Amino acid sequence: MDDLQIIRKKENDIYRLEEILALLGWDQETGMPEQALEDRSDQMAWVQQKLSEQLMDPEWETLIEKIEGEGEQIAWKKNLARRFLLNKALPPDFLSEFVRITSLSREAWLDARKKEDFSIFLPHLQKVVHMARERAEYLGFEEEPYNALLDLYEPGVTASELEGLFIPLEKDLVPLIDEVIERQDSKEPDFGILAREKQKLLHLNLLNQMGYDTRKGRLDFSVHPFTTTLGACDVRITTHLDSNDFFNGLFSTIHEAGHGLYEQNLPSQWKRTVNGQACSLGIHESQSRFWENIIGRSRPFWEYMTKAVLSVFPGEFSSETPESLYRKSNYVKKGFIRIDADEFTYNLHVMLRFDLERKIINGDADVKELPDLWNSKFKELFGVIPHKPSMGVLQDIHWSLGDWGYFPTYTLGNLYAAQIWDTLKRALPDWENHIETGNFKTILSWLVEHIHSKGATHSPGSLITSVSGKALDYRYFINYLKEKAETLYVI
Amino acid sequence: MDDLQIIRKKENDIYRLEEILALLGWDQETGMPEQALEDRSDQMAWVQQKLSEQLMDPEWETLIEKIEGEGEQIAWKKNLARRFLLNKALPPDFLSEFVRITSLSREAWLDARKKEDFSIFLPHLQKVVHMARERAEYLGFEEEPYNALLDLYEPGVTASELEGLFIPLEKDLVPLIDEVIERQDSKEPDFGILAREKQKLLHLNLLNQMGYDTRKGRLDFSVHPFTTTLGACDVRITTHLDSNDFFNGLFSTIHEAGHGLYEQNLPSQWKRTVNGQACSLGIHESQSRFWENIIGRSRPFWEYMTKAVLSVFPGEFSSETPESLYRKSNYVKKGFIRIDADEFTYNLHVMLRFDLERKIINGDADVKELPDLWNSKFKELFGVIPHKPSMGVLQDIHWSLGDWGYFPTYTLGNLYAAQIWDTLKRALPDWENHIETGNFKTILSWLVEHIHSKGATHSPGSLITSVSGKALDYRYFINYLKEKAETLYVI
Repeated sequence: MDDLQIIRKKENDIYRLEEILALLGWDQETGMPEQALEDRSDQMAWVQQKLSEQLMDPEWETLIEKIEGEGEQIAWKKNLARRFLLNKALPPDFLSEFVRITSLSREAWLDARKKEDFSIFLPHLQKVVHMARERAEYLGFEEEPYNALLDLYEPGVTASELEGLFIPLEKDLVPLIDEVIERQDSKEPDFGILAREKQKLLHLNLLNQMGYDTRKGRLDFSVHPFTTTLGACDVRITTHLDSNDFFNGLFSTIHEAGHGLYEQNLPSQWKRTVNGQACSLGIHESQSRFWENIIGRSRPFWEYMTKAVLSVFPGEFSSETPESLYRKSNYVKKGFIRIDADEFTYNLHVMLRFDLERKIINGDADVKELPDLWNSKFKELFGVIPHKPSMGVLQDIHWSLGDWGYFPTYTLGNLYAAQIWDTLKRALPDWENHIETGNFKTILSWLVEHIHSKGATHSPGSLITSVSGKALDYRYFINYLKEKAETLYVI
Repeated sequence: MDDLQIIRKKENDIYRLEEILALLGWDQETGMPEQALEDRSDQMAWVQQKLSEQLMDPEWETLIEKIEGEGEQIAWKKNLARRFLLNKALPPDFLSEFVRITSLSREAWLDARKKEDFSIFLPHLQKVVHMARERAEYLGFEEEPYNALLDLYEPGVTASELEGLFIPLEKDLVPLIDEVIERQDSKEPDFGILAREKQKLLHLNLLNQMGYDTRKGRLDFSVHPFTTTLGACDVRITTHLDSNDFFNGLFSTIHEAGHGLYEQNLPSQWKRTVNGQACSLGIHESQSRFWENIIGRSRPFWEYMTKAVLSVFPGEFSSETPESLYRKSNYVKKGFIRIDADEFTYNLHVMLRFDLERKIINGDADVKELPDLWNSKFKELFGVIPHKPSMGVLQDIHWSLGDWGYFPTYTLGNLYAAQIWDTLKRALPDWENHIETGNFKTILSWLVEHIHSKGATHSPGSLITSVSGKALDYRYFINYLKEKAETLYVI
């Protein structure tokens, strides 16, 4: 074997372990017997240990040096270094302490949330933040420590770049939201009780129509919907169905299908390598949001979907039309909870977190101040203050797990999606007709060709530029929303 | 760590791998996307490889020598030697060749069966038999080569011992079957179309009643029903439900539940060790057959079960009574297929295979003669000749996989079960009342105390003697069947 073959073999060993870990995790979330948790944790810890040994292999350094060439070869070299040399920056003691601290912190977060008492979480969160800052120091950064953490989730992105996108976006969003809320029907959508098995059938038909290949995947139920990759031909999605929340279930499924389509169409020639992975979390999220919001909450989509819904629930939806379902699926509400937020308000929730995270990590604010900072920023954005911590500063799990720098990828996903959409519409002038007739596969083909099949051979910045011809610009997103508001409410 | 702790740790590592392998296999059989097979085989091969490395570890020899003591310690030592030193008897080249040959042979068997042409299978089967004989030579034996193979599946059992059980059993069975068939209602049971989801509900209720703990297990569907252990608290069973074959599905579920109850109640103090496993394949089968036949096809069971069935299928079973369902569940038929056989004819199918296997392995017959030997023995036992190879010599997968010596464990299971039942009835004089009222847990408790909780600390022979006070005797089984025939048809 030459050096490149050795690298491919080592990568293959790593991704095989990731696949096995994915099955253990998938099973745990979808149907593992409740008392099996202890054994399962032990099984996963063992696989995780094997994985760490491979990731930490000192051979990587010399092997990676052997890669020469250009284009995808260079991307391979860069990605390998990112994945395998990054670990070297963090001392083993630091890593094991990080696991210990965040595991305790997660428990404390659960407890604090249940008891509505931030002070239970505070000492743990202080330790986590301390370690997140140390992590930034170990990793190194330009301008500000927070950049080191952002880069972990979205390679190359910086806080000042995000600020340049988020501040004008916020300025445009706040008045737009007020206008929409003022004009929309004030009643929240309600379709009564809809059998879950029938909803699932409807979802499966839609998945098939979208081009999600069930010979290479499956749809299951879990408390929190997710997508997981157990192999190049085994990409599974889950959803969460309530019999009295039709849209929540439907958009969860479409969202995860967006992730699943991306994973199902990654470049097979780079199977089980760093290049064969998704480009970034932000680009991944762009795909889920693209399908969920841009397609799933569009007027032509409901032209198609209303027929499908009526065929499964003829009674419950008898008085609905494509127009009424289009409006209802775009109901806007100033809620406290990020994960329940609509397309208009969602990014405000992210901006709040970005603002706070940046201050905390850069040392411009103290963890103790978080509840107050949260509430005052929330008041500024939404005009109200959360009435309890679980609705505010304690709502997300991320900080307890040490995932500082993660939240911005959600908004990046929305911005990428809008910019991709603008390009796709030009490339496919009769897009409206395609969507109305359920011909989603032409849209999927375009995404596969320009995004999915590239894997991680581009950075997110270079991918979006190569797709759209321009650097990331928040205006695609705001224009898209304004246009939608116009068609909805003649604003 | 002292030596014993080292052994426990090494065993723990081995059984953890077995658990991971069990999940990979369970998922493959119950719902893996069809195109994922190649990746899954690769994942399983990797885990299997890790497992082989552990099993083959040369350290075992010296470590096992360190165990001293008596009782369960001695069993531990013996079981460890059996599991880990047995491998040493077989050269690595032999083992890998065995895998290669049987894998090809399995494909040839599938093809031969489809084309109804034994000659396609013959050259492969000759190689498999050649290797099975070699295996016997490597392992060593007393009296005859076939004994070495029998011992792999049922420790300590010999061909002459089996002959001593099977010959008188056959002599009693053949006329009994004729009598039953003559007297029973000639119409096969038929309940029309029964929704599978409703059947599953009925099965789940029964599982719960039997004491199968769904917090430590689950019920799924697969083409061939099986039981698999993914952890001490994760024992899963599968069944196969046809909407028009009520009994087949029900008895498949009860059969697997019998295996599952055994696995769920193995000794926790010996978790992830050789002593914490089932005693033998025969004893395992005794548990599944006990629940399936002795309980599930008993008169008092139908006193309980008829109510349960009527509550789920009031229309379809409206004209049934406990007595009618008792009779129908004991319908006897001289069929060609072993796995479809009833309690009366099943063992004849096994005896035929035992007879042929023994001749072939001991060199008293040639593989070429198998179809003729099969047909003439079948004619002797059942009075007819299979009209095509798939109904005869090509029906089972076992021989193609190299599992020569396995079949007798099925009949041993039936004999053990009847002897256990005789003892249990004496210990629980009001057993009839317990079963009629669905109070199966008293029966389970007895099985747990006397069999399940012993794990593999006894050989099958010593377990059956310690439970019943006597060595294995075929007459318990034949008396049990004669009694049943009497209550059914006043023979």
